Amino acid sequence: MNDAVTEQVSNIMHEIFNKQGALQALGARIVHIGRGTCETLLPMSPAASQHHGFFHGGVIGTLGDATGGLTANSLMLPDYDCLAVEYKINFLAPAKGEALIGRGKILRAGKTLAVTSVELLSLNQGVEKLCAVMQQTVFAIEQK
Amino acid sequence: MNDAVTEQVSNIMHEIFNKQGALQALGARIVHIGRGTCETLLPMSPAASQHHGFFHGGVIGTLGDATGGLTANSLMLPDYDCLAVEYKINFLAPAKGEALIGRGKILRAGKTLAVTSVELLSLNQGVEKLCAVMQQTVFAIEQK
Amino acid sequence: MNDAVTEQVSNIMHEIFNKQGALQALGARIVHIGRGTCETLLPMSPAASQHHGFFHGGVIGTLGDATGGLTANSLMLPDYDCLAVEYKINFLAPAKGEALIGRGKILRAGKTLAVTSVELLSLNQGVEKLCAVMQQTVFAIEQK
Amino acid sequence: MNDAVTEQVSNIMHEIFNKQGALQALGARIVHIGRGTCETLLPMSPAASQHHGFFHGGVIGTLGDATGGLTANSLMLPDYDCLAVEYKINFLAPAKGEALIGRGKILRAGKTLAVTSVELLSLNQGVEKLCAVMQQTVFAIEQK
Repeated sequence: MNDAVTEQVSNIMHEIFNKQGALQALGARIVHIGRGTCETLLPMSPAASQHHGFFHGGVIGTLGDATGGLTANSLMLPDYDCLAVEYKINFLAPAKGEALIGRGKILRAGKTLAVTSVELLSLNQGVEKLCAVMQQTVFAIEQK
Repeated sequence: MNDAVTEQVSNIMHEIFNKQGALQALGARIVHIGRGTCETLLPMSPAASQHHGFFHGGVIGTLGDATGGLTANSLMLPDYDCLAVEYKINFLAPAKGEALIGRGKILRAGKTLAVTSVELLSLNQGVEKLCAVMQQTVFAIEQK
Repeated sequence: MNDAVTEQVSNIMHEIFNKQGALQALGARIVHIGRGTCETLLPMSPAASQHHGFFHGGVIGTLGDATGGLTANSLMLPDYDCLAVEYKINFLAPAKGEALIGRGKILRAGKTLAVTSVELLSLNQGVEKLCAVMQQTVFAIEQK
Repeated sequence: MNDAVTEQVSNIMHEIFNKQGALQALGARIVHIGRGTCETLLPMSPAASQHHGFFHGGVIGTLGDATGGLTANSLMLPDYDCLAVEYKINFLAPAKGEALIGRGKILRAGKTLAVTSVELLSLNQGVEKLCAVMQQTVFAIEQK
């Protein structure tokens, strides 16, 4: 099975991602896009941290939100873009290390609504550790 | 009734807030602290925006998370600091304008766990509009 | 301002409510319907309880889900019925007493999606106590 | 690796489960308990249904809440019992069929807080279909 998105969809996804100032300011990037899956990465920096030097919970939520949106968009684009309706995140462990990884998968790919699940892992001296999990709902917006 | 926190608690709260790189990078600030309430503000900037120029959902979540934590800390400090266990946010309207306002109130002030509710409002040409709501759970960490 | 729903909408809401076996088995009932608000009541019974004799968390969630759906339906009917997309509940205190009260209000009344907020209160010897809060998203289904 | 719980823990879990009136009224039962995993089953009945004859969203939440609690208790008992702090459920598809299955796994097994993930599947003419997913936080209560 070929799970790759088309080059057109991949290009639109990178274009939307790169226009988001919040993701650019954090240095986040797309690592891989599949059909209904996505991997992202966000390096540690002062702008990503809280007062103990770990990744800030809001930044972990931001990468989760972005990763879930990409995951849904991999199945919605080019006809629809998506908008987050809501998300919920549980923190499992302090997120420390050189980077944060987001891994999304699609749970429901509806015409109007999609539901995604995102795992957030810290990368600490090369070792991955699950530090948060998110469930997210997005809404499809028709592109003109 | 006097709902003000002590000067000591207010000082610790500002100190913790100012040490959080993620909040500093976004230019967020504390507007008011009461006992079990809190108001914050985050100005629009490229680092706060998504691709249509609205506030990014992850940034709205970040201000919500920070505001809820401050709300709980107003009752927990100086003996305990708090750590977010989880949060959930529903988006109600696109958040556009010159600033984002966070308003938190305490729903449960337990010895170990606190629950907060946070409203996020956009400030657009001086007009406030409710754009998201959050429920959050935090855990008390004893300070040495 | 007149916040009452029409008799037609009230009748459809009671009819839908009364056809839900889960709500009937629990003896739940509608106390009041406004435009974008709703109050419900569920009496204590073995079918509503957990092992300490309090209301079961799942039953509190069930009343919350039903109350939020009614709240949205008060603005959607007769053209649309609603379906829950997701809900999230935080428990604030053990729910003990003779009844559980659900109070819903609309946070967003969109064409396709609505967001509700529901407070769940225990009624113990006539005294109300907030025991849980819910945020819920519902989806509008066109009625033929 | 032996993932079975001790007979003592299994007995306490069944005892607690059987004392919960809400679960008894719905005919729910424990299918399997592992260390950090759990499977439950709830048969279709009028008490479990909504107005289209599907499983009621509140009942799906009830089975999810119970399954997550059992999952955490498999690691907490006999010294601690657990209490739900919050849960969040996303509905993926209408739940129709002869039974509902709950499958829980532990995401975080802390001393005070545990986080679980629960999948809810409908069993329709013997075919399983994922219909909802839950994230839940529980709190450990020391047993005297």
